[in-house]
Amino acid sequence: MAKQEEEVILLDFWASMYGMRVRIALAEKGIPYEYRDEDLRNKSHLLLESNPVHKKIPVLIHKGKPVCESSIIVEYIDEVWKDKAPLFPSDPYAKAHARFWADFIDKKLYQAGRNLYTTKGEEHEAARKEFISCLKLLEGALGDEPYFGGESFGYLDVSLIPFYSWFQAYETYGNMIIEHECPKLIAWVKRCIQNKESVSNTLPELEKVLGFVQHLRKRFGIDE
Amino acid sequence: MAKQEEEVILLDFWASMYGMRVRIALAEKGIPYEYRDEDLRNKSHLLLESNPVHKKIPVLIHKGKPVCESSIIVEYIDEVWKDKAPLFPSDPYAKAHARFWADFIDKKLYQAGRNLYTTKGEEHEAARKEFISCLKLLEGALGDEPYFGGESFGYLDVSLIPFYSWFQAYETYGNMIIEHECPKLIAWVKRCIQNKESVSNTLPELEKVLGFVQHLRKRFGIDE
Repeated sequence: MAKQEEEVILLDFWASMYGMRVRIALAEKGIPYEYRDEDLRNKSHLLLESNPVHKKIPVLIHKGKPVCESSIIVEYIDEVWKDKAPLFPSDPYAKAHARFWADFIDKKLYQAGRNLYTTKGEEHEAARKEFISCLKLLEGALGDEPYFGGESFGYLDVSLIPFYSWFQAYETYGNMIIEHECPKLIAWVKRCIQNKESVSNTLPELEKVLGFVQHLRKRFGIDE
Repeated sequence: MAKQEEEVILLDFWASMYGMRVRIALAEKGIPYEYRDEDLRNKSHLLLESNPVHKKIPVLIHKGKPVCESSIIVEYIDEVWKDKAPLFPSDPYAKAHARFWADFIDKKLYQAGRNLYTTKGEEHEAARKEFISCLKLLEGALGDEPYFGGESFGYLDVSLIPFYSWFQAYETYGNMIIEHECPKLIAWVKRCIQNKESVSNTLPELEKVLGFVQHLRKRFGIDE
C-alpha cells in the first residue's frame, strides 16, 4: 500500500472526547487529514493493526506510522508541527503542571462522568460528588486566567474542552446544573467556543451526545 | 521556611517503583537531593500540602515547587537538567513510542502485578496470564536492542527497571519464573544493573521487597 509522505489519517469516533482532543489539536495547527469514523462494535482491520495493545481510538497515522493514546498524540502533534500554535509552554514547571491536570482528567474526571450515567443509588450519589469535586478542582487550577494555558489556549484546554460536549448528558443523568457549581469553568467554555474555531468546529451538538448516551444506557440495560 | 534556590527534595517510599523511577532519573543526571522516606500510614504535612489532589508519593520539590506523578516528574527532570544523560530521544515518533509503553506499564503492568499478591482463585489465574502477557509485550517492544532507549538507557528503561525489585515477590505469589517466560527481558535487567550505577545503587534488595509484600498480605488479611 503506497503511503503519501505527509499523509495524516485519524481513526476516531465522533462522540469520543479523546478523539476530539486530537481533532482540535490538528485544527489548531491547520493540518489537513483524512478522518475515519470507526464502528466501535466492528473495528476496522486498520485500527486493530495500528493499536494492537489497546484496540482503541483515537489513533493518528502519520507517514504510515501509528501513534496511540490521545495525550500522547496531542504531544506528538505539538512536537512535529511546532511552528504554529504551540500548545505547551516552554517552561518545564508550567509543562509539568499542564501534564498533571491532563492526567487528572484521564484518571478521575472521565470515570466519574461515566459513572453518572452507568450507576444507580449510592454509587450514583458518590459519582455525583466525585464529578463535581473534579470540576471544582479544575476550576481552581484555571484560577482567574482566560485559559488553562494562561493568555493562550494550550494543552490542558485541548484536553478538557471536549468534555463540554458531554455536559448535557452529565447534567441529565447527574441531576445537576454545572454552571451553578462551576460558573468560572462555564465562562471558560464559552470563551473557548467563541474564540477558537478549532473548538466550535469540532465539538458535536450536545443533544446528539445526549442521544448517544441514551442509546448506551439502553444497550447496557440501565433503561428500557 | 527559607528555600535554597536550587534545593531538591524527594518525598518517596523506599519500596515504590514509582519513587525509584525518580531516584534513577536524578542519579542519571547527577543531581544532589534530600531524600525523605514517608510513612504512608501517617503522611507528612509536607506531602499532603504538596500533592493535595492524590496525596501520593513520589513528589519532587524543586525550588519550593512540587511536581507530582512519576512519569511527569521524570519528564520534568529531563527538561530541567537537559545537558546531561538525555532520557528522551529528539525524534517525536520515538518519544511517543517511549511514552506509549510507559503509559502501558502504569495502566496494565502495575495492576496485574498487584493482583498477583492480592487475589485468589480465578482472579489470581487471570492476573498471572495478564502479568505474563504484559511482560511479553514489553519484551517485544524491546526487540533486539540493548535498551528500550536503543543504544542508550532512556525514559522507558527508567520507567520499567524499578519493577525488577518486585520480581521475587511477583514470582513467589504468581507461581512463575519470569526468566523462563521472558529471557530477553531478564537479559535487559542484568544489562541495566551491570552497566548503570543509577540502577544498581537505587534498587532495593529483592528479599526486602518480598518481606514488605508478605507484610502487606498480612495487613490485607490474605495471610495470617
